[in-house]
Amino acid sequence: MADIRSPDLDRGDPRRQPVAPPSAAIKAEASSRVSALAKPLGALGRLEDLAVWWSACRGVCPADPPANVRAVVLAGDHGVTASGSSVSAYPREVTAAMVCAFVAGVAGVSVLARQHGVSVRVLDLGVDADLDGLPAEVSAYKIRRSSGAIDREDALSLTEVQQALAAGAVIAAEEIAAGADLLILGDMGIGNTTPAAALIAATWGVPATEVTGRGTGIDDQALVAKTALIQAALDRVGARAADPVQRLAALGSADLAAGVGFLVAAAQSRVPVLLDGVIALAEAAVAEDLAPGCVAWWAAGHRSTEPAQQLATDKLGLVPLLDLGLRLGEGSGAVAAVPLVRSAALLLSQMALLSDLA
Amino acid sequence: MADIRSPDLDRGDPRRQPVAPPSAAIKAEASSRVSALAKPLGALGRLEDLAVWWSACRGVCPADPPANVRAVVLAGDHGVTASGSSVSAYPREVTAAMVCAFVAGVAGVSVLARQHGVSVRVLDLGVDADLDGLPAEVSAYKIRRSSGAIDREDALSLTEVQQALAAGAVIAAEEIAAGADLLILGDMGIGNTTPAAALIAATWGVPATEVTGRGTGIDDQALVAKTALIQAALDRVGARAADPVQRLAALGSADLAAGVGFLVAAAQSRVPVLLDGVIALAEAAVAEDLAPGCVAWWAAGHRSTEPAQQLATDKLGLVPLLDLGLRLGEGSGAVAAVPLVRSAALLLSQMALLSDLA
Repeated sequence: MADIRSPDLDRGDPRRQPVAPPSAAIKAEASSRVSALAKPLGALGRLEDLAVWWSACRGVCPADPPANVRAVVLAGDHGVTASGSSVSAYPREVTAAMVCAFVAGVAGVSVLARQHGVSVRVLDLGVDADLDGLPAEVSAYKIRRSSGAIDREDALSLTEVQQALAAGAVIAAEEIAAGADLLILGDMGIGNTTPAAALIAATWGVPATEVTGRGTGIDDQALVAKTALIQAALDRVGARAADPVQRLAALGSADLAAGVGFLVAAAQSRVPVLLDGVIALAEAAVAEDLAPGCVAWWAAGHRSTEPAQQLATDKLGLVPLLDLGLRLGEGSGAVAAVPLVRSAALLLSQMALLSDLA
Repeated sequence: MADIRSPDLDRGDPRRQPVAPPSAAIKAEASSRVSALAKPLGALGRLEDLAVWWSACRGVCPADPPANVRAVVLAGDHGVTASGSSVSAYPREVTAAMVCAFVAGVAGVSVLARQHGVSVRVLDLGVDADLDGLPAEVSAYKIRRSSGAIDREDALSLTEVQQALAAGAVIAAEEIAAGADLLILGDMGIGNTTPAAALIAATWGVPATEVTGRGTGIDDQALVAKTALIQAALDRVGARAADPVQRLAALGSADLAAGVGFLVAAAQSRVPVLLDGVIALAEAAVAEDLAPGCVAWWAAGHRSTEPAQQLATDKLGLVPLLDLGLRLGEGSGAVAAVPLVRSAALLLSQMALLSDLA
């Protein structure tokens, strides 16, 4: 299976290589500075770890707070919404309508991003519509319309997975070239919690019952059906899901695969990412498998109400900063957490040292 | 005991009168608008309730986000730190040193406040030092130096309590006259979690074991001693603590009593307050007792690691927005939560409505 499992590894694809960690020397220096601040030990709580992480990622202590935060929202539809099972409370037409809302700047994440000076770029990777009325660059990286219904067929071909991974890497490179010091990855797509939960279940070998949530708000009956659909997908794919590329082909989608490519490329470029909810954590789960060590470049912005996100954050050792019950998607939970990253950086650089007070 | 229990009520003191709630009509209008936004029902989580609260407090829907947020840090020392028991990990001299750090703008809350455009005013209500080197206005409302050791004697005389309550009311009025649309109340004082825990225990009639925490970081042995000291104070005061003014005299301090006056006056003036940790919740506990209805004007910014704060937030029906393990005091947890109040307001006013997308 090596020819299918890892086609690019054989050609020396850097995506399968471990990712180098943030600076250990700066991490140690930042930890020392945290201890030297004029405050009781540990009194800044989780902002202390966050300050150390941020300094290490930036390679300087103290580091300036994030000034060029750039969010990318990847949009796509999902074959499961056409399969007769109602895995979502909303029809797939909403995906295209929401892409228009992003372009118009009136989506939830648009509002939060303006507040915090974060740029937002929405990209159609797999929306099941031709977005003719929108600027052409929105669909510049489109892989296909929608995806296969994962309970019955693969979501994508292996070629499409590679195209999407490459697209995600290019998108990350563009944002980094534009000066990003912190990246955020959002997602928009009716039905997207179904492939995300399936990818997380397959990554850690847990059953559908442990990962399936209510998404935007399905009822008890739909939750039973969604759980059965995810389990059917996991059963259909079997051991093939052990390989991350195969997993994306079998259970993912164009937007999710592009998100994986984005996360790997960002870590390889030593740019930190503030993760959002269950979609970002599904992408993170596969990215860490594909390029071990990426996780050191990530912080988690918001605890999702989706059980799959909680499982993935636990497995990856991430503790979300916020827990506000948001279930909007769009990267909104991560954007809402941006002020905390800035706070951590500012406290480390601007608070008095104990030695100043003496 | 009426002459002692409620001296000002007999003279028609408005502090004992119930406080009128925020606008019910605007609250209903804001709830309707939340439901009409282009998002799944409930998808903004706790920001939905926060947006409704903010609109109702401001009396308009949608309301502008808080633009003139003003924090007041009340500083004071506490007799318990001189009693031989080590209720704090730090000596009382730190209180005066930290007042200087606030004036210099290098305290933790100073950094967070600059980040979020929040003004900070530090006031010496009961620091056990003459702050000669600082601007005279810092000590303009000073009631006394330190307070009585509450396990053995009253913290304040009834006259000092009334002076502190009045000072707090004047301080709030000054901040409101300066245009505050949202107030924050911080505290600085070595030993301050001891009277705060005692006030909360006395308010709800629970033993010291349920409220005593580690403050800035005392060890197990000191925790046992601190618990015993608080229980001794509660036992000494007995049923007299049922009256909120007597409770402040017996168990409080000048800074805590001023905080109570501040909170009552703010609610009477229909200005909302973002509460911080255990000190603010102790002040809130007494203020709500003194002027029922104040609580409707408050939101809680940060969950404290102190058990007394968690008890008080539960009893008052408040759910803190952040839970970052901060235990710095100074109002820092509330200031860190300011962006969330702004997010809630902005989402309510700027997100598309479902009717816009149709």
